[in-house]
Order: sequence, then C-alpha cells, then structure tokens
Amino acid sequence: MEVQLGRIGERDIIERIRGMYPYAWPDDDCFYFPSGDRYILLKTDSISGASHIPKGSDPERAGYFFAAINLSDIAAMGGTPRYFMAAMTMPRDTPLSFLRAVERGIYKCLSRYGARMAGGDLKEGKEMAFAGIAVGVVDKDKMLRRKGARAGDLLCVTGRLGKNAAAYHMWRKTGQRKWANMLLEVEPKVREGQALHRLGATSAIDLSDGVYSSIYQLRRINGKGFEIDLSKLPLHREAVRAGNGLGIAIEELALNFGGEYEILFTIPARRYVMATTYMKRRGMSMTAIGRVTGTENILIKDGRRIPIRNRGYEHFMRRVG
Amino acid sequence: MEVQLGRIGERDIIERIRGMYPYAWPDDDCFYFPSGDRYILLKTDSISGASHIPKGSDPERAGYFFAAINLSDIAAMGGTPRYFMAAMTMPRDTPLSFLRAVERGIYKCLSRYGARMAGGDLKEGKEMAFAGIAVGVVDKDKMLRRKGARAGDLLCVTGRLGKNAAAYHMWRKTGQRKWANMLLEVEPKVREGQALHRLGATSAIDLSDGVYSSIYQLRRINGKGFEIDLSKLPLHREAVRAGNGLGIAIEELALNFGGEYEILFTIPARRYVMATTYMKRRGMSMTAIGRVTGTENILIKDGRRIPIRNRGYEHFMRRVG
Repeated sequence: MEVQLGRIGERDIIERIRGMYPYAWPDDDCFYFPSGDRYILLKTDSISGASHIPKGSDPERAGYFFAAINLSDIAAMGGTPRYFMAAMTMPRDTPLSFLRAVERGIYKCLSRYGARMAGGDLKEGKEMAFAGIAVGVVDKDKMLRRKGARAGDLLCVTGRLGKNAAAYHMWRKTGQRKWANMLLEVEPKVREGQALHRLGATSAIDLSDGVYSSIYQLRRINGKGFEIDLSKLPLHREAVRAGNGLGIAIEELALNFGGEYEILFTIPARRYVMATTYMKRRGMSMTAIGRVTGTENILIKDGRRIPIRNRGYEHFMRRVG
Repeated sequence: MEVQLGRIGERDIIERIRGMYPYAWPDDDCFYFPSGDRYILLKTDSISGASHIPKGSDPERAGYFFAAINLSDIAAMGGTPRYFMAAMTMPRDTPLSFLRAVERGIYKCLSRYGARMAGGDLKEGKEMAFAGIAVGVVDKDKMLRRKGARAGDLLCVTGRLGKNAAAYHMWRKTGQRKWANMLLEVEPKVREGQALHRLGATSAIDLSDGVYSSIYQLRRINGKGFEIDLSKLPLHREAVRAGNGLGIAIEELALNFGGEYEILFTIPARRYVMATTYMKRRGMSMTAIGRVTGTENILIKDGRRIPIRNRGYEHFMRRVG
C-alpha cells in the first residue's frame, strides 16, 4: 500500500529524506557554510495563507511575521541577519495593495534588525504561500549550536511563554481581529542570541514549534534528558488569562504550542546569576525552567515526575494532546 | 477600484515592489554579496504542481528540473553551484514514494553539478509548490552580469532553441507522456557560463522565459537595442518538426517560449571565431543570432525589420502573440 505523508509526520519524513543523501547536513536551526573566518547562515521557512495568516489579520503584520520567523533561526544561532529573499505564490485576484502591505511589513522587520531585501520570486497559484530565505553571518567561534548541552546545565528560555497559544485559542473562540493580529506578533531574538553566546550558553534552539518539540530535538541531538519544572515557567499574562478563562492546562499553552520564537538554551549553573543580570541590564530576560539530567524528558508537575512522550507540533500530523 | 495582480503582470509588479525599498538590489539572474575575494550568489526559483509539473510526468524528472532551474541562474552568472535548499509544500495525501522520487531527482542534478543538498522546509498545503534556493560562488573578477553589452557586440546563444516550446505544444495536442517528460529536461549551463567569462562575454542572462523576455530585460538594463536575425537561429529538431507539423511560427517556438535555460549573451565580434572554436572543442556550442545596435529590439524576418514589442512570458499575464 502507498504510504501517504499525512500518516507519517514532518520529522519522520525529514529523517527518511535525510537518509537518502550520502552526506549529512547540520542538525541546527540554519544550514551554515564557512566563508573566511565566518560562517554564512542560511534558513528557509514558509508560511501558507491557509494555516499561518488568519482571516482578518493585517497583511502588513503578516509580512512582518514572515520575515521575523526566518530571521529567528539566524538569531537562535547567535548570528547577524544580513539579507532576506521572498519566493511568493499568490492568486491572480490578489489586490496589489495586499502585496504592498506585505512588503511594507517585511521591510519594517528587516530594517529593525539590520537586514536588507534581496529580491526573490513571484508566481501565481491557487493558494497563497510564501517561502522566505534568510542569510546571516556569525564569527566561527561565536556560533550557537543545538549540540553541546551537558548534564547539570540549566535549561532556560528567553522572554515569556504561552502568548501565541492564548491568542490562537482566543481567536478561535471569539473571532476577534486583535487575537489574529497577536498571533503574528513575533520578534526574532537577535540581541539575545548574540548575548547568549558571550554568556556561555552550551546549546540553543528556537522555539517555533514549542518547548516540547524543541526538547524532543535537543534530546535526540544531545543524547541527554531535559527536565522541566512547570512551576518555574515565565508565563505571559495572556496565557494565564486564557488558561483560567478557557480551562486549558497551562502546559498545553506554554509548552506544547510555540509561536513565540523565543530561544531555548542550556547554560552551566555557575553562570546563571551573572547571565540573568547581564540580560536584565540590557532590557532582555531569561529564566531557568529546568535542567539537563538523565536521558528522558520529564515534566515536574505538583511534585510528580511525568515522562514527556509528546513530540510537539508537527506538520502533516494531527496534534496529540 | 482595487487593482489586482492579474491585471498588471509579473515584471510591473516586481518593479513596483522594488520601488518601495529605499535601496536597490542587483538586476541580475542572482542576488550576490561579497565574501572575501568572492561573491556568494543566491537564487530562488519556484515551481507549482499545477503549472510546472505536467500530469503524468515522472516525479524524479520533476525533482531534477526543480534543482536544475535554480542552478541555471548560478550558471548564467559564471558561478559554481555549491548548495541547494528546498522549501516544499505538499498535500497530506501525497505518497511518500512521490516525495522520495522528487528527492532522487534533486540529488541526481546536484551531484552532476557538484552541489550539495542543505536541507529546507516541508509544510502541508492544498497545492503542491516547491521553492528552491541555490547558493553558488564566483571569483569577484569572473562574474557575468546582465549589464555590459556594447554597441556592435554579437548577440549569441548557447545550445539550441525551441525544444521546450515544441514539447509543450506536442504534449497539449497528444497528451503523450514523453512530451511531458521532455518539458522537464533541463541542464544548467554551468561549464558554458564559466567558459563565457573567459572568452570575453560582455553580458549574459539565462533564457528561462525565452529570448523575447531576455532581450526585453537586456534592453532595459543596457539602454541598447538587440537585433535578431530569424534565419540564424540554431533550431532544435523538435522545434522544426513541431513548427511544420502544427503550423506554429518558428519565432513563437524559438523566441517567445523559453524553458531551455540556455544562456543568451553578448560578445565582441572580434572574439567570436575564437570563442566558437573553444566551445566546440569542449563539447559545448554557441551561435550568433544577431547583434547589439540602436535602441530598439528588432526581428529580421525575410529581409524585413520588425520591431519586437513583445515582452515574452510573464506570470500573472495572459500570453500575447
């Protein structure tokens, strides 16, 4: 029988495809290759009208979001974003004003983070779909990788968790435009990524698909377990509100959804105090939410230790709770 | 009234979008940026299931085609392809075997031209759409640009013209799989591009959208006219057959369709004999089809000089004869 993609899930599909090539490519947020004493970082991330641009949301915000999620992976490797390209497919009846608004959003995001538009491609199609390409640079000795976590390191996250999950559920419930727009509010953590390298982070990954997804991957890459203490999560106030108002478990909102594009990272325990102080002074934030220990991923909730079997969000897979 | 993309056409849309940015990006087949004594070349080109992968065509050939059209722009600038990324959208019910066949095709093309797969992105969507990203390198003093054509230069093309137009029309007429597959037969002209720089080509552009489209752009960029002598076109035998069999004018097949991904270039007349000999000895071919003269684009047909108003193939526009 023919196996269809919808029965496998994104990560398994990608592993099978990787296995077809007689060489490996790096298992990081970006592909990278050496150029003099630097690495060039390359990332492509796509959005489709259907699943990423909620109806009624503002096209300028969608453009900003589109650029931001691509720069986010450059940020998670400690890189500096330089260029951005957009390969866009749009239906014939798309208003020019819509495309112009998307471009204004892209430009706004790129300018804010010091990157430049470098062109791209425009094709017509039935469905709206944008593939972004971000190019960054990083000094060879300053790159953050997914591999490097050591037993005893603290597991930390920048910023706060659960905002986008809350916005998603509120948008589904109320249909209000403000929630759709909030879903698109993403900032790549460029300054954070660069600071984390200086502060001695041992591994880092972006949080696009949520904490569960990211620690699933960190465990696979590092061969180590990650323990998360639910009581320590830095919750966004919208997550607390939505959790109370809608009766959704806080771990669902803060760990199993993603969309914040924060950086999850590990750092030796002895560096933690210095690091939080350094970040705070510069208007950034980080919080320890657990540690690297054993070989399983564990959630500590109300004093109980619960194995995390969940792999987080995947395309082609129905979300499992 | 809202202006829709379908009323404007790809090139005008792109010009309007470029005008929104306070800086220019190069008007070439690829974007490029300096890195040491080289340029890094970047190109993104997309295909959609609907318009680029004819029904009944072989997915492995589609994968090869997808990689080849992206490497083609690296080739047209005299570059060496290095890496390739694929941002793919596929429906949930796509068979895994289809995706595997596409990847085999990509790998086959990349291996042939010395490039490596560097990962990408996989998302689900209603419509099949692939955005490719090719990365190449070229020494700073060896890059071919679109700008540089000089009055008196010969206008030349590598290889032969009209094969893909012929395959398209034959496929529409007969529905035979062999024509669908022939449409996907593309080889990036990597050796040709590098040779053309050495041979003193003054400008170059790839032929993806056909000769009319390419000279429209060369004229805009160079501020010069291009004169084509219909009797000098190096026609592919399938073009001659389809032209006779289907009664389609040869200039339609050879100049107004594209899909061959050959390189159109200009070269000083005094270098022509040496260049053709050099190419021929190495199993490549080139033919002068006209020259750079005046400020208009002109077709010479049966001794008459006919202004070429045609802009060639554009997305979002109905093809005009």
